[in-house]
Amino acid sequence: MIRTHDAGSLRASDAGTTVTLAGWVARRRDHGGVIFVDLRDASGVVQVVFREEDAHALRNEFCVLVTGEVSARPEGNENPELATGAIEVVARELTVLSEAAPLPLPVDDTITASDDLRLKYRYLDLRRSGPANALRLRSRANQIAREVLHARDFNEIETPTLTRSTPEGARDFLVPVRLQPGTWYALPQSPQLFKQLLMVAGMERYYQIARCYRDEDFRADRQPEFTQLDIEMSFVTQDDIIELGEEIVSRLWGSLADYEIPRPIPRITWHDAMNRYGSDKPDLRYGVELVELTSYLAGTSFRVFAGAIDAGGYVGAVVMPGGAAQTRKELDGWQDWAKARGARGLAYVVLDESTGEARGPVAKNLSEEHLSGLADAVGAKPGDAIFFAATADRREAQELLGAARIEIAKRAGLIDESAWAFCWVVDAPMFEKTEEGGWTAVHHPFTSPNAEWIDSFETAPDRALAYAYDIVCNGNEIGGGSVRIHRADVQSRVFDLLGITPEEAQDKFGFLLEAFKYGPPPHAGIAFGWDRTCMLLSGNESIREVIAFPKTRGGYDPLTTAPTPITAQQRLEAGIDAKPKAAAGVPGTGGQAAPVEHSN
Amino acid sequence: MIRTHDAGSLRASDAGTTVTLAGWVARRRDHGGVIFVDLRDASGVVQVVFREEDAHALRNEFCVLVTGEVSARPEGNENPELATGAIEVVARELTVLSEAAPLPLPVDDTITASDDLRLKYRYLDLRRSGPANALRLRSRANQIAREVLHARDFNEIETPTLTRSTPEGARDFLVPVRLQPGTWYALPQSPQLFKQLLMVAGMERYYQIARCYRDEDFRADRQPEFTQLDIEMSFVTQDDIIELGEEIVSRLWGSLADYEIPRPIPRITWHDAMNRYGSDKPDLRYGVELVELTSYLAGTSFRVFAGAIDAGGYVGAVVMPGGAAQTRKELDGWQDWAKARGARGLAYVVLDESTGEARGPVAKNLSEEHLSGLADAVGAKPGDAIFFAATADRREAQELLGAARIEIAKRAGLIDESAWAFCWVVDAPMFEKTEEGGWTAVHHPFTSPNAEWIDSFETAPDRALAYAYDIVCNGNEIGGGSVRIHRADVQSRVFDLLGITPEEAQDKFGFLLEAFKYGPPPHAGIAFGWDRTCMLLSGNESIREVIAFPKTRGGYDPLTTAPTPITAQQRLEAGIDAKPKAAAGVPGTGGQAAPVEHSN
Repeated sequence: MIRTHDAGSLRASDAGTTVTLAGWVARRRDHGGVIFVDLRDASGVVQVVFREEDAHALRNEFCVLVTGEVSARPEGNENPELATGAIEVVARELTVLSEAAPLPLPVDDTITASDDLRLKYRYLDLRRSGPANALRLRSRANQIAREVLHARDFNEIETPTLTRSTPEGARDFLVPVRLQPGTWYALPQSPQLFKQLLMVAGMERYYQIARCYRDEDFRADRQPEFTQLDIEMSFVTQDDIIELGEEIVSRLWGSLADYEIPRPIPRITWHDAMNRYGSDKPDLRYGVELVELTSYLAGTSFRVFAGAIDAGGYVGAVVMPGGAAQTRKELDGWQDWAKARGARGLAYVVLDESTGEARGPVAKNLSEEHLSGLADAVGAKPGDAIFFAATADRREAQELLGAARIEIAKRAGLIDESAWAFCWVVDAPMFEKTEEGGWTAVHHPFTSPNAEWIDSFETAPDRALAYAYDIVCNGNEIGGGSVRIHRADVQSRVFDLLGITPEEAQDKFGFLLEAFKYGPPPHAGIAFGWDRTCMLLSGNESIREVIAFPKTRGGYDPLTTAPTPITAQQRLEAGIDAKPKAAAGVPGTGGQAAPVEHSN
Repeated sequence: MIRTHDAGSLRASDAGTTVTLAGWVARRRDHGGVIFVDLRDASGVVQVVFREEDAHALRNEFCVLVTGEVSARPEGNENPELATGAIEVVARELTVLSEAAPLPLPVDDTITASDDLRLKYRYLDLRRSGPANALRLRSRANQIAREVLHARDFNEIETPTLTRSTPEGARDFLVPVRLQPGTWYALPQSPQLFKQLLMVAGMERYYQIARCYRDEDFRADRQPEFTQLDIEMSFVTQDDIIELGEEIVSRLWGSLADYEIPRPIPRITWHDAMNRYGSDKPDLRYGVELVELTSYLAGTSFRVFAGAIDAGGYVGAVVMPGGAAQTRKELDGWQDWAKARGARGLAYVVLDESTGEARGPVAKNLSEEHLSGLADAVGAKPGDAIFFAATADRREAQELLGAARIEIAKRAGLIDESAWAFCWVVDAPMFEKTEEGGWTAVHHPFTSPNAEWIDSFETAPDRALAYAYDIVCNGNEIGGGSVRIHRADVQSRVFDLLGITPEEAQDKFGFLLEAFKYGPPPHAGIAFGWDRTCMLLSGNESIREVIAFPKTRGGYDPLTTAPTPITAQQRLEAGIDAKPKAAAGVPGTGGQAAPVEHSN
């Protein structure tokens, strides 16, 4: 090391020591004949005092080497805000290691720049303490998770990222193969397939912090490449995976967010989560539960509600505490909010703060009897607002109310931003109806029905439940997984229900099914969306903050300007336009399985 | 867990305990009324005794759940070879968790199958102890390296794998981008560029076990994707990186190969390595050094030697101990060996075992004087063979002799297969001549000249030395790195020498150079070829053995049959044939830097 000490490590007890420091000029203040420089390195900041003539050339972000003596600051000049605030270093020698041009992005924790500018100059952005600490936290999170897993005899195993393209996996990134022109690899959406093969292989306990890829529209906070903490175990039940997952998040939050997660983490069934919170990833930092009114409002003549009830659907409500105090404009705003979500609107009633009288557009459509019992039925008080949703499709109405619940919590200030609320959402449905009237797997076709349904899921596919579980933190799904099917008879029945013929199964999932002929063990797993987990841990609001070099929307990298056009020569050499040899790609030789497990 | 104990953990002290085990039927032996089954799980093997009627359906590799009582084996029936050999489990209950079809690949440590078959059924191959243990060792190697690095405050940071294509990087894998049709990402050949940016960012200590990609001919033991332990530090010298590298390999070999590496690991200069061993990755498990004879043979009339000497080239020799005992056929075989390497042949002399008289094709061409002193000049004894190489290009001849040296060691049985020999090869040349008569960077154009040459490399580019270092184990390069240039003036002089104009530099290395305007710190790094390192640690001879799902030559995966043709629909959706928008790809907006550091 060209330095003797870390700048941020110096304390009063170092006074009198001659030190050599290396770092960056974070701030410079000229005080007639003397220049004070805040010298920053990875460990922190220390004040260095120069004679003016020695340091007049220094500018912000010059990289320097300084030798000097640690000295107690003059009384009254200590800075208790700074770990090194009791001392300063009186410079004797200065070497400018490299200069800095005028900065396009100020290296200053108090300044907010645009995301594009921050990412273009990410190397300057990362000199600020917030962004740098987010990456440091992520590194510690990796290590903590690994400690838990290695203590339990897990093996870290790398799986391929150049793998087989899935005909139906329309969101695979593809990679042309120069040496076999006309053929392509795909980048995997998750290591799902390979981790199941590792279980067939008897490795029993696998994990990997795995890079995954998805070539799809980047919603608000998605990246084309993302990272999972991916785990699979053999000879276990759902409870074993849940216990392991709890240990991991408990260690993470205990070490990095100074929060002891109460254990066991509560479990809520998927149906309860939908009924009570209108979401399969409920934010439990606040109450504001949904109330079903389908029975209560039976016989109503209000067309909107009656229509939903007659269609066998759902009418429900959610209460906004104090919502009666909203202005007409604010109440109208809810209609716009609902329309932006694709709903026709959001029916409501407000309860007069003093009389409790119900007012608003819905009130006049309800019978006296329905109105008088309404506050009790939904648990509202005078001064509250009640929002309604009613559709023939229960889930659609619940999801609208669930979204309203979150919005209510925001607008009514119900969210304790310092709180943490975890839960497991369990007993997810196995199947959902396709538009064509058949069934499709909610998770993936290798997810096991639970014990209650394993012998009878065909009798009521809409009600059959899976051993599938998600872990939710403050309304964010941070991980999810399932028990897998290991019995050939069960797998075959699931394929039957899904309308997948043995030939199609062979074509789509050939080599996984082949592997499953040879004594597959019972196995189950989970994958944590590692970007999101680290984002929450670090108190950030975007996964970009915990990624060293993230991309913006559309997958663009302002720093390298990737992606770019390629040259004709590159195109030729990579074999992009080559025709595959006739022998390749014989149908029925086994295709990649579709199972993908990710939470990002 | 559905089991109570690991099969391999049971000992005599467990006798009397009722246990539930889960695993695979490794072997079954019928003994009239009783069936013995070796039950295997990840922890090992235990013998289970069944009544015949209970277990007659069991076949090899069935996955089973067994409950029974641990019982001391009858006296005389203990198996001291087996950790569980003192006991057996008397089965009371048996559940077949899944059956196994007849095995295409026997799960048997003693059977050798073809690589293609092993990889097609890798999940069966990995049930064998050797392949499974190789992956387990790799997992431990990861953890050990991380312990060293985290104890030294390194941050594990993930860098992008979807990045910018390099116009000159003809071996990049390319990835079409659906959302920006006509543009492509490239998969990185190493994180070199990003780790240097992280140093500019002030992260100071970075590491990553990083997936890297190279779309090139797969020589004997290459994979299209491979893994590096990638490290970069700021404010350090070459010695700091070397010390860190030694700590890592010492911990690895100490923990996993039961070998204490003597430290410091010897350093040899690149020129010494070439002169003495004819290789920049010398195998030091044996001697057999090259001897230069250019001066000794000055004035020779032997055309082959004289031609090399007159051209300012090199004549040298390497001695094969006992090589005089080779048959004529064996000696002829050396000619074929040399021709297979592209040489014209391999001149030799054999020294008669009793008289020491020199014989063979070269002998008659040398003068009496040259012949009589030859044995002393090369350090040969009666009974030895002496092989010669002579070319106008010193390096070419040395490399031929270096290869002969390795072959001699093999044929003469000089290699102690249980030995470990490490060295650092340092002081590598900065530049080498291009065919056009200019200069090119041996490592990459950001590699720093050493202190001796930093002010004068232009005066003798052919002799200028870099702060570049490789670590070599038993003749394998397992890691390599360099100190990087952080001074703009030095970088600019290096570009000048390489004939790179400022405009070209901007186009090729734009955004790295831009970053280097803002106070880059002195920095240096290293990358370990992790596949090769783990291969050596595990005593294997192919990197495939330490990769869970490796590919064969040409990048083919016998298990998934990747790569495959894609459908027209996939081609369309991925935007493979889209024309880029005119605005994209303006020249001079900065291209990806070429620096790549890898050892695989």
